[in-house]
Amino acid sequence: MSSESTDASSARAAGVRARGYARIATEEAFAPGWMLERYQSLLARRALDDPGFNSLWGFYLGSRSARATQIIARLKDLGPQRLADMDATGIDRQIISLTSPGVQVFDRASAVAMARDANDELSAAVRSHPERYAGLAAVAPQDPQAAAAEIDRGMGQLGMKGVIINSHTLGEYLDDPKYSELFAAAEAANAPIYLHPNTPSKGMIAPLLERGLDGAIYGFGVETGMHMLRIIVSGVFDRFPRLKFVLGHLGEALPFWLYRLDYMHRATVASERYPHMRPLQRQLSDYLRENVYVTTSGMPWGPAIRFCQQVLGVERVLYAMDYPYQFVAQEVTLSDQVPMSDAERRLFFQVNAERVFSL
Amino acid sequence: MSSESTDASSARAAGVRARGYARIATEEAFAPGWMLERYQSLLARRALDDPGFNSLWGFYLGSRSARATQIIARLKDLGPQRLADMDATGIDRQIISLTSPGVQVFDRASAVAMARDANDELSAAVRSHPERYAGLAAVAPQDPQAAAAEIDRGMGQLGMKGVIINSHTLGEYLDDPKYSELFAAAEAANAPIYLHPNTPSKGMIAPLLERGLDGAIYGFGVETGMHMLRIIVSGVFDRFPRLKFVLGHLGEALPFWLYRLDYMHRATVASERYPHMRPLQRQLSDYLRENVYVTTSGMPWGPAIRFCQQVLGVERVLYAMDYPYQFVAQEVTLSDQVPMSDAERRLFFQVNAERVFSL
Repeated sequence: MSSESTDASSARAAGVRARGYARIATEEAFAPGWMLERYQSLLARRALDDPGFNSLWGFYLGSRSARATQIIARLKDLGPQRLADMDATGIDRQIISLTSPGVQVFDRASAVAMARDANDELSAAVRSHPERYAGLAAVAPQDPQAAAAEIDRGMGQLGMKGVIINSHTLGEYLDDPKYSELFAAAEAANAPIYLHPNTPSKGMIAPLLERGLDGAIYGFGVETGMHMLRIIVSGVFDRFPRLKFVLGHLGEALPFWLYRLDYMHRATVASERYPHMRPLQRQLSDYLRENVYVTTSGMPWGPAIRFCQQVLGVERVLYAMDYPYQFVAQEVTLSDQVPMSDAERRLFFQVNAERVFSL
Repeated sequence: MSSESTDASSARAAGVRARGYARIATEEAFAPGWMLERYQSLLARRALDDPGFNSLWGFYLGSRSARATQIIARLKDLGPQRLADMDATGIDRQIISLTSPGVQVFDRASAVAMARDANDELSAAVRSHPERYAGLAAVAPQDPQAAAAEIDRGMGQLGMKGVIINSHTLGEYLDDPKYSELFAAAEAANAPIYLHPNTPSKGMIAPLLERGLDGAIYGFGVETGMHMLRIIVSGVFDRFPRLKFVLGHLGEALPFWLYRLDYMHRATVASERYPHMRPLQRQLSDYLRENVYVTTSGMPWGPAIRFCQQVLGVERVLYAMDYPYQFVAQEVTLSDQVPMSDAERRLFFQVNAERVFSL
């Protein structure tokens, strides 16, 4: 089934043996050309009342900068360019997902159909390169029932290894009770949900956008960290205790806040300040340690990686590159050089990913 | 001048000698009763279009919970209760500031007058207990010129040791060029500006407030972290290179983001995505390491404290309790027990504070 030549495959296997671990990159993006055309159309028609989308995709699809044009070219490629980039940087396997915001900006019917099409396309690429790629299934949260069905189809028929959700869907968050069916399907299929950043929703972006802080520099992190907390404090993991989430960017800084999250949640619940903030079965930090995994996308930085391994556990931290948004060969070297034991390094680059995504 | 008895003073000095360091707590709050009455009036008249203020102070001034009532009682006290609490928890000295949002929610003329009154009141308490208290000057950013004058008066006549600003002022941030005079006054007086949290401004609070995440549990951090970044990326420290800021809560998680901030700022500037995001003289992490100090308010947690000492430097991390909002005797013990050398511990609890605030 593999398109990789026997020679290339053997050479890679020898490299893995010599190194002691395979490098599996877990937050790697793609975008079908037809989806980018639909984004272009949204922008041209000024159809979307989402300042974050308009800012981000207005840039990527409108700018002639090297950053924008190279990222767009690489996003669209699931073939030779991507494989060459992986070879050039020593990435053995990518876990690929539909880039943010995926189908989450379209009307319900379009989004459902586009998620299916994107998943068909990605799974075909994975079938062509089964040693090099694995895929996460995109869903349309606009239709929770269809999303649940697509999780079933993706994890079953298509051989996907999890689900990608790009934070809010037109300002709606997954703590809404209407998403129970989606969570039930993910839990039943043992499908980890990768909660990937989106630009901050319309209700929180204004002061970030004013200063160019709405994107990956800061806004992505606070949007996605908040989203994860909304899911936790609403009790989703008490209702779905075997549900697994994955966060990029070393957990969007939530590991840094563990102590304060626990203290302030306890204090706030005890004070009955918010009628809807109810006691949970565990501490907030327990959910972050037991139901959540984090990856290093965009954060190839030893001190923060070691901090997360220390406070979450070495089996909870996974390698990711964030290709093609942060495609930097030197950062692979930086990640290799983070001081850890050989056993920890094998967990970090390979074994944790194999376990979380059932590779 | 001291009201402390000779016996009590000697006993404290003996304790400091035995321990090897004095404990100086650097983010400790007070509130004059008359200011809380003005808050109450704002709430009763529904006069303020600030959902964060209305939620937070509606709670503190309306709730009968133990948390709310005890905090209000302690905020108002600058005498026996506060000193007894300090003695009970082994705090040698508090650096006291007007609680958030201070005068920053009032009309310009009222705010200017109230800042002066609050500073007169605080400086009188400091004069009564010079060994136990030091004070930061409140200002009204609503009137930058008056704020600059109050910094001069506070640092001169009143003997204050810095300035407190409680993040946004009715949605306005300090990166606005109109604050140059305020920064010039602070730099000239060698007055560190403590950028304390406020509830997220109206333009970003909606999805946080929906789930009770607007306060200290998360919203404070993202509001204040964003505010610090706005100040940095707008070039304030290139214009005022000797200006010092202090952030609580271990830097509102910005130390965790150092690598990503640098990478994404470089990439964004190079791509010319935002006309107003211009090259700076230094990397973002340089400003955070060279112009900013962080305190441990609400974060008495060894792993995060050590992480900050590692990535910022041991001379940049100061102890704070966050009295009375987080008045927990056991947390002083936790802070004492964070593994560090005797020399580092003396910097952490005492010497860094003496240097930053010129005690």
